Amino acid sequence: MYDQLAELYQEMVELRRYFHMHPELSFEEVETPAKIAAYLTELGIDVKTGVGGNGVIGYIRGGKPGKTVALRADFDALPIQDEKNVPYKSQVPGVMHACGHDGHTATLLAVAKVLQANREKLAGNVVLIHQFAEEVAPGGAKAMIEAGCLDGVDAIFGTHLSSSFPTGVVGYRSGSIAAASDRFSIVIQGKGGHGAAPQESIDPIAVGAVLITHLQQIVSRRIDPQKPAVFTIGSFHAGEAFNVIPDTATIQGTVRTYHPEVQERIMGELERIVKGTCEASNASYSLQYTKGYPAVINHKQETLLLAESAKQVLGEEHVFEMEPFMSGEDFAYYLQKVPGTFFFTGACNEELGSSYPHHHPRFDIDEKAMLAAAKVMVTATVRYLENAAACKDGGNR
Amino acid sequence: MYDQLAELYQEMVELRRYFHMHPELSFEEVETPAKIAAYLTELGIDVKTGVGGNGVIGYIRGGKPGKTVALRADFDALPIQDEKNVPYKSQVPGVMHACGHDGHTATLLAVAKVLQANREKLAGNVVLIHQFAEEVAPGGAKAMIEAGCLDGVDAIFGTHLSSSFPTGVVGYRSGSIAAASDRFSIVIQGKGGHGAAPQESIDPIAVGAVLITHLQQIVSRRIDPQKPAVFTIGSFHAGEAFNVIPDTATIQGTVRTYHPEVQERIMGELERIVKGTCEASNASYSLQYTKGYPAVINHKQETLLLAESAKQVLGEEHVFEMEPFMSGEDFAYYLQKVPGTFFFTGACNEELGSSYPHHHPRFDIDEKAMLAAAKVMVTATVRYLENAAACKDGGNR
Amino acid sequence: MYDQLAELYQEMVELRRYFHMHPELSFEEVETPAKIAAYLTELGIDVKTGVGGNGVIGYIRGGKPGKTVALRADFDALPIQDEKNVPYKSQVPGVMHACGHDGHTATLLAVAKVLQANREKLAGNVVLIHQFAEEVAPGGAKAMIEAGCLDGVDAIFGTHLSSSFPTGVVGYRSGSIAAASDRFSIVIQGKGGHGAAPQESIDPIAVGAVLITHLQQIVSRRIDPQKPAVFTIGSFHAGEAFNVIPDTATIQGTVRTYHPEVQERIMGELERIVKGTCEASNASYSLQYTKGYPAVINHKQETLLLAESAKQVLGEEHVFEMEPFMSGEDFAYYLQKVPGTFFFTGACNEELGSSYPHHHPRFDIDEKAMLAAAKVMVTATVRYLENAAACKDGGNR
Amino acid sequence: MYDQLAELYQEMVELRRYFHMHPELSFEEVETPAKIAAYLTELGIDVKTGVGGNGVIGYIRGGKPGKTVALRADFDALPIQDEKNVPYKSQVPGVMHACGHDGHTATLLAVAKVLQANREKLAGNVVLIHQFAEEVAPGGAKAMIEAGCLDGVDAIFGTHLSSSFPTGVVGYRSGSIAAASDRFSIVIQGKGGHGAAPQESIDPIAVGAVLITHLQQIVSRRIDPQKPAVFTIGSFHAGEAFNVIPDTATIQGTVRTYHPEVQERIMGELERIVKGTCEASNASYSLQYTKGYPAVINHKQETLLLAESAKQVLGEEHVFEMEPFMSGEDFAYYLQKVPGTFFFTGACNEELGSSYPHHHPRFDIDEKAMLAAAKVMVTATVRYLENAAACKDGGNR
Repeated sequence: MYDQLAELYQEMVELRRYFHMHPELSFEEVETPAKIAAYLTELGIDVKTGVGGNGVIGYIRGGKPGKTVALRADFDALPIQDEKNVPYKSQVPGVMHACGHDGHTATLLAVAKVLQANREKLAGNVVLIHQFAEEVAPGGAKAMIEAGCLDGVDAIFGTHLSSSFPTGVVGYRSGSIAAASDRFSIVIQGKGGHGAAPQESIDPIAVGAVLITHLQQIVSRRIDPQKPAVFTIGSFHAGEAFNVIPDTATIQGTVRTYHPEVQERIMGELERIVKGTCEASNASYSLQYTKGYPAVINHKQETLLLAESAKQVLGEEHVFEMEPFMSGEDFAYYLQKVPGTFFFTGACNEELGSSYPHHHPRFDIDEKAMLAAAKVMVTATVRYLENAAACKDGGNR
Repeated sequence: MYDQLAELYQEMVELRRYFHMHPELSFEEVETPAKIAAYLTELGIDVKTGVGGNGVIGYIRGGKPGKTVALRADFDALPIQDEKNVPYKSQVPGVMHACGHDGHTATLLAVAKVLQANREKLAGNVVLIHQFAEEVAPGGAKAMIEAGCLDGVDAIFGTHLSSSFPTGVVGYRSGSIAAASDRFSIVIQGKGGHGAAPQESIDPIAVGAVLITHLQQIVSRRIDPQKPAVFTIGSFHAGEAFNVIPDTATIQGTVRTYHPEVQERIMGELERIVKGTCEASNASYSLQYTKGYPAVINHKQETLLLAESAKQVLGEEHVFEMEPFMSGEDFAYYLQKVPGTFFFTGACNEELGSSYPHHHPRFDIDEKAMLAAAKVMVTATVRYLENAAACKDGGNR
Repeated sequence: MYDQLAELYQEMVELRRYFHMHPELSFEEVETPAKIAAYLTELGIDVKTGVGGNGVIGYIRGGKPGKTVALRADFDALPIQDEKNVPYKSQVPGVMHACGHDGHTATLLAVAKVLQANREKLAGNVVLIHQFAEEVAPGGAKAMIEAGCLDGVDAIFGTHLSSSFPTGVVGYRSGSIAAASDRFSIVIQGKGGHGAAPQESIDPIAVGAVLITHLQQIVSRRIDPQKPAVFTIGSFHAGEAFNVIPDTATIQGTVRTYHPEVQERIMGELERIVKGTCEASNASYSLQYTKGYPAVINHKQETLLLAESAKQVLGEEHVFEMEPFMSGEDFAYYLQKVPGTFFFTGACNEELGSSYPHHHPRFDIDEKAMLAAAKVMVTATVRYLENAAACKDGGNR
Repeated sequence: MYDQLAELYQEMVELRRYFHMHPELSFEEVETPAKIAAYLTELGIDVKTGVGGNGVIGYIRGGKPGKTVALRADFDALPIQDEKNVPYKSQVPGVMHACGHDGHTATLLAVAKVLQANREKLAGNVVLIHQFAEEVAPGGAKAMIEAGCLDGVDAIFGTHLSSSFPTGVVGYRSGSIAAASDRFSIVIQGKGGHGAAPQESIDPIAVGAVLITHLQQIVSRRIDPQKPAVFTIGSFHAGEAFNVIPDTATIQGTVRTYHPEVQERIMGELERIVKGTCEASNASYSLQYTKGYPAVINHKQETLLLAESAKQVLGEEHVFEMEPFMSGEDFAYYLQKVPGTFFFTGACNEELGSSYPHHHPRFDIDEKAMLAAAKVMVTATVRYLENAAACKDGGNR
């Protein structure tokens, strides 16, 4: 089936570039799921749309009875302005596939095409989970699970293209591979006024600056250095005019952790620092903390199967046990329900300019990575179904 | 003529409220000058429009020969969202007369009506300067002067309604009464990336927070405490998403000073701190500093005349020698060309809710203040012209 | 008498250098008052010692009846290590005359010698107030006044040598000439521990750093820019070892103001910021604020007399009306009791290395300044007594 | 031999309390090594003193030929004021055994007594390494190794009493168990002056506060969150008087890392931030960074032997595989030369007040922990020698 995948490479590139040029924000996906559903339907695959919101599911029924494997790809984009100079640059101002979900989607469509073409040989079924809204909690996974996307599923696999690894390399890890990912927002309520009379105002920008410098101490001073934690402020907005002290400043950010006790301590310290700093300035505040995706915990057996599949098709030297990432992923929810594993596929090629970090305005992937990811997914799927069939046969004898 | 003004009070209120409901940003004034020109034309006053941009000038020719007095009112609004609950609330989202220029304009229109009605008795002429764009440098005054608005003018008077003083009180001061007012903008160029991998990015929000806390030391540590200075950051904007480290942060602010050496030192320290802080973080930056209006320096003789006029119509107990303000005013430019004075008219009435600071989203004036201002302007104008005529007569004999 | 003063110049230098080499801290003065008392006694002047503590008073009785003028010089030193390379460098480690009080004392001793030599001609009496402990509140002035040093005194004069003005120039000012000067100390109580486990400690140095950056906003954001204020932290001490997080950090500082309402607001904001910042970090604190000397308010008539005296002996071009200083001075207390004036005598000569700011480890005075100060004091004294005598005579006729 | 150890418990307590009452700073140890040498000599053990500085070595020759095991205990104290209320409180002001080295020493002396008493049965030799100066780089280990303390040694064991674990529990770990530990010092050179005239000075305290808040971003923003790092400032000293701006501020701190690339990045960021911040303030600086002990890397085989020995004498439930510590330890150097392991022995008993963190002014150990540590050391020593003898015998046959 690898030859078939290789033949599909040009089509994967075209699909990916189409999605890249037409990105849609989380929870606002309309054209993307329509395009996916049309493609799968065209292949003769049974499709459900509007699953849990904007999700799409495809069902490939194997020629032989057996277990059911789910494969998942996410398809939402980010509120970032594309700054690349490429023909397939985003055509939507301020929206961009800056995390590779376009590649995930194209990869899974190609995988679907090959598996569907070979369905007679399959010893079981495959569920294609095209998920919406991975980037923004509460995410699409939870809703799609509630809508039944895992019904009858025995195992699940998913991958993320990554500009941190060279193209064609696969990283796996049993246990936690991605962090719990929370968000928070703070509104500092000062008192606006004329920029020339600060003594009559409460300056929320000056308060905000002290607040942000103090908040750095959560990670630098208040967390066990052995337990990874990230505290990032992603946006700060205050004021409309250069000469007017504004009423408020609005701050948003994210927290990443692996340990619940670290998450709890950060929540406490955040509240404490916001409260103390605002009181120090006679300002008031509101603080909202939203727990996001839990940590992604890979299952041991499925992770080993995936690693062996990857070594088989990519060569041992291209497969390695990786360190966990701080990023959040709502793949976590699938793994709370069924066994499976989430792995990373390298997509970095400096010569092609695909070495920018994820969420960067110049982020791009080396499209060759899609072929590697597709091969690993097809292999792991087939191997899982055949292993299960073998066990059963073995059990029958 | 005071009775005539008093009769006009209701009309002043209506005019002011009309302008309040239809505010226009600096340099974007269209309807406001049209309305002013129509009103003056209706009175039979010769009008020039488009003076230096959006300015309007009216010429009242007195029945007797003599000197020429200019009276100035500014008519632009601010980019602030009106948060008052009043029937005459701004109808333009995000734009508001939060500094009282609507009142200045209504006052000068009423003054014009009365002076025009009594023009036969005037021993000289009056030039009505309805100025656009006072709030934003380079301002409208400079352009209107270049377009000839002061040609033939012997003296000039102007007032600002002020929520710092009770309604009907007039503050005057010989010498500097308003500060030099500059603006600056800073762009911190960091390196964007995924919020979960700060070590791969240069976080412009974290850099900006350190920068703003350090910039406080310009005023607190590096300026002679005897020499007033204000350093205000009016806006800070960075980031679009809570989980993405943005590429840049944009900061804007204003500097107010009376002493050129303080202004120079602040410019130097600002550059030094921005440069050092960005280098400390491996970020780059751009810094723009725009010198704005110079300090407003009132002339002694005209200030005394104004003070006496105010005492005459308002009573001695309502007129006082005030401290200078930190606010900038492009009235400064008129006073560099012709003698004159700029004074403040109290418009604060706590019971009416007109005690919010200027540029506050709930700023309002006690409309009664317009009547006081109008009386003082008419009196000072007549007194100036008669004094000059008397001198000349005296000289003739 | 000026010739006599000039002849005494070498002796003034020797006296001053003696005091410079043997500085004594405030309230710990022993040798200095003893030396002063011995010198005055040697001249035949009646001396009281131990006045209000370590103060010394000398009484010169004039040959003719009349008023009584007090002249004051302070004689305490500072806890600063002398870093000058001069033969008369301080011989006491960590203690130094870094404010010129050695020069004040030598000047007044020379003035005493000349006035005593000419006492027969004096139309009244002179009280020499050699004051201890000016540098540290509550200061020596209050105690000396309570001990009666102003009894019978009609007017008082005092000067401060200043490295801000060129040698031989005199600055005078009616009204406030020196600020109210308060002190405060803060102890941040964190929780000490191993430097490698910050999460188990509360780091008072990290808290202190945030506190100090926030405290800058008192002056930069919360005080009317028209009303001078200084907020200086003079010392910060925490920790004994590089690898141990200490329990506490100790901060000391000073506040200078002219307006009681500014002083009050600073006290409130200081408490608010210390409280909020410590709570933000789960630290506790103690804060002590000690109001120090009030502002020095010169009396109009005595100031004019002083200015005229200075112009007479130094030339008009060397006497000017100065801006007020932010420094505190307990001369304030004398002026609350009797009329008088406090003036500044320039002592800066860049070529001689006497241009360092006061309290700097290399501070020095141009000794020539003592001669100028002495001449002005003698002249003002004689003129005051003669004016008073003249008035009285006039009244008698 | 355990019974013999148990009988020695009271003596261990007395020895430990003696050392606790007479602590000596690193590199200044005189009485402590003398006391140790006297004790060992008294036991009939050959002793070398002055090894590599202040080190002491004892040689126990076993009755049978075999390998040589080294046991190490450190004996220096810390510059911390003892704040405990106990009869055995430190009698040296400002110096304290706040890290348990007194307990290490007493433990090893008891171990020595028992092993010496049983030396005839030992199948090899034991080297007792009483090391000076563990707390301060370059430490005593390096010098003692250079002086030959490891000559002929086949394996080494050492332990640290720890208030992080309950008394009698042993933590072991193969691979890295303690971090690389560096120190740095920064002198900010400002410009001193009068506290009332900040504009004439460069305030090193205000600069230092900004510096420390910015330095927090090294850990919070510039290091991979997966790779533990600690950046602690242990002391900050500036200023002698509340009203004088000092010339300089002196900062000291420590850096802990496991990964050389993290260590390198921190060094670079530290220099960058110090440089940029000082330039932002027109201050200059000096920065010294001293690499300290490398990470402690335990050897696998000896770690397993130690763990088994501990389980044998303490019970399985009291022995666990621990996380690495951020603390530095110059035991690292021994393990670079010979195989061995460094383990932790719990000494925390909340009821006895021994739960304060290490380096805290109230730090104490539960003395019972010494008995557990001694038992494990004796067992591991005997087991190691017997294993080696068994192998050799096996090889002989």
